[in-house]
Amino acid sequence: MSLKSKTIVFGALISMGLAGTIGFAASNNSIFKPVEPVVVNEQMKPIVELGKMLWFDPRLSRSGFISCNSCHNLSTGGVDNLKTSVGDYWAQGPINSPTVLNAEHQIAQFWDGRAKDLKEQAGGPIENPLEMASSHEIAVNVIDSIPGYKPYFKKAFGTDKVTIEEITEAIAAFEHTLVTPNSPFDKYLKGDEKALTDQEKKGLELFKTSGCIMCHNGPLLGGNSFQKMGVVRPYETTNTAQGVAGISKKDQDRMNFKVPTLRNVELTYPYFHDGEAGNLATAVRIMGELQLGRTYTKEEIADIVAWLKTLTGELPEIVIPTLPVSVDATPEFNPWAPKKDKE
Amino acid sequence: MSLKSKTIVFGALISMGLAGTIGFAASNNSIFKPVEPVVVNEQMKPIVELGKMLWFDPRLSRSGFISCNSCHNLSTGGVDNLKTSVGDYWAQGPINSPTVLNAEHQIAQFWDGRAKDLKEQAGGPIENPLEMASSHEIAVNVIDSIPGYKPYFKKAFGTDKVTIEEITEAIAAFEHTLVTPNSPFDKYLKGDEKALTDQEKKGLELFKTSGCIMCHNGPLLGGNSFQKMGVVRPYETTNTAQGVAGISKKDQDRMNFKVPTLRNVELTYPYFHDGEAGNLATAVRIMGELQLGRTYTKEEIADIVAWLKTLTGELPEIVIPTLPVSVDATPEFNPWAPKKDKE
Repeated sequence: MSLKSKTIVFGALISMGLAGTIGFAASNNSIFKPVEPVVVNEQMKPIVELGKMLWFDPRLSRSGFISCNSCHNLSTGGVDNLKTSVGDYWAQGPINSPTVLNAEHQIAQFWDGRAKDLKEQAGGPIENPLEMASSHEIAVNVIDSIPGYKPYFKKAFGTDKVTIEEITEAIAAFEHTLVTPNSPFDKYLKGDEKALTDQEKKGLELFKTSGCIMCHNGPLLGGNSFQKMGVVRPYETTNTAQGVAGISKKDQDRMNFKVPTLRNVELTYPYFHDGEAGNLATAVRIMGELQLGRTYTKEEIADIVAWLKTLTGELPEIVIPTLPVSVDATPEFNPWAPKKDKE
Repeated sequence: MSLKSKTIVFGALISMGLAGTIGFAASNNSIFKPVEPVVVNEQMKPIVELGKMLWFDPRLSRSGFISCNSCHNLSTGGVDNLKTSVGDYWAQGPINSPTVLNAEHQIAQFWDGRAKDLKEQAGGPIENPLEMASSHEIAVNVIDSIPGYKPYFKKAFGTDKVTIEEITEAIAAFEHTLVTPNSPFDKYLKGDEKALTDQEKKGLELFKTSGCIMCHNGPLLGGNSFQKMGVVRPYETTNTAQGVAGISKKDQDRMNFKVPTLRNVELTYPYFHDGEAGNLATAVRIMGELQLGRTYTKEEIADIVAWLKTLTGELPEIVIPTLPVSVDATPEFNPWAPKKDKE
């Protein structure tokens, strides 16, 4: 399915939803699904291991200072907890860093869905002038120059020839393991009634009956559709991102963004594509007003927030990799090199 | 012993050494000592655990983007492999990032020895405008605002009141654990003759007999004295750091720097306080010429480099901590906030 048709289908869905929110809200929990642990098979292990090294390797950036983990920090919910991210030369990124946790099973990657999967996504920041600001060609040359990487590529891919395909596939394989099972909500979904408090259950009920689940459903509670930010009334922001329209150039796609997953949402503040909602209560209030035309009471917001916090799962245990050393053939890194003109 | 008297004592030592290098060079290995593993006792464990969290917490910086690990990256030998470090607003740091590995048992901290120990050192980068660019007051306010830190402080220090004393003590306690035992050279020192190849042994002998051990001795092979960079002839650099003289303001201390440890030197490129030596061969050649007045042959350099690579130990296994979340009371981070005038 193309990005365009996805958007249209879901655009239609939300219109239906708004017309019949209560009717749609399932009274059971079948609309959600627990996050399950990932088992890495023997064949995948060396690819995942290589991917972890590349994930932490700042040499994928022009400066040699920024790694994937800089903005998708695994100490802080797979995000940087900033409104938008810091990039090359302290660039102010255009958009809020989405979490890498459980990111795989989304309809597409990036807020505007411009990458179809994690592998395609991984190539983006490397060459984005506001992020890592390198190029695929340079990144490949850098990694290819490092003899210590060769055995890892050989083991992972059967060849030590480094390509951007392999680099991004390995990073995506590592990201595939970054899932967070066993949240209180998942335990509840699996039948443990005591995994949620009464307040959390109230929050869940309200989340379902007031229409939030129209967009935040499935195992990730989001990540599976594109929706307009500002359905009932426009979302006001100084951020210039236009969502899917930035890719499709179609006016109907303006402010259509991928619905973010709510998994670990307690950790992934600040919220929205512009990071302007600093806490969950604010995010819930604004979502209610802008998407559902509903003004939640303070108590209702507190209930929903209490429930949202049950979506924090067990974070993956990551042992920091030791990166192989650069050699004379490795291009030198100078974070302060004169900036080249970018388009 | 004051910094000044230390410098003078070692200044005298190196003069003696230069006069009688061969005589001084011990033929046994008693001048070196193996690095031993650190055993953390029960009382220290919670302090180390807290310290690890703070080590990885970018909220100790003004921007919320730079952590201790940004420049002392535990994936890359406890350094950033850049000539000088990237700081707040992409500031160009004045000096090469020294490794945190085995850093504890040095005569003092920083290239100019301005901090007497790791605890005092840890406070420096937090308030250095070219590094994390926060202040002790702000850093304490930030950490104190985070409820999730409280139990860790309580367990570590018996109180949940956050002070800069506790923050820096905890970071130093974590750093205390960052040792790298069981290098091939350590195995050799402990009697395993086969731990070094013939070439490595040749390099070691040359290192001893040609005078390198005058400064690079002890368990860290350095880190225990201040010495003039450029003894035989001046070191030419565009870097403006003046070493101990920057602190003492005395002309005799110009270009006196702490001798860096050679432990894991294979990982901690580029070399010297200005990071201008890109690889070990260059560093050995320049050291020979400037400190010993000796021009090593290519073969000699290769032998010494081969031996230096036996100083790479077992790196500590670090599981990335999960950091407690910020709350509304936590000051907001804006990496691009207008810069305040500094002094």
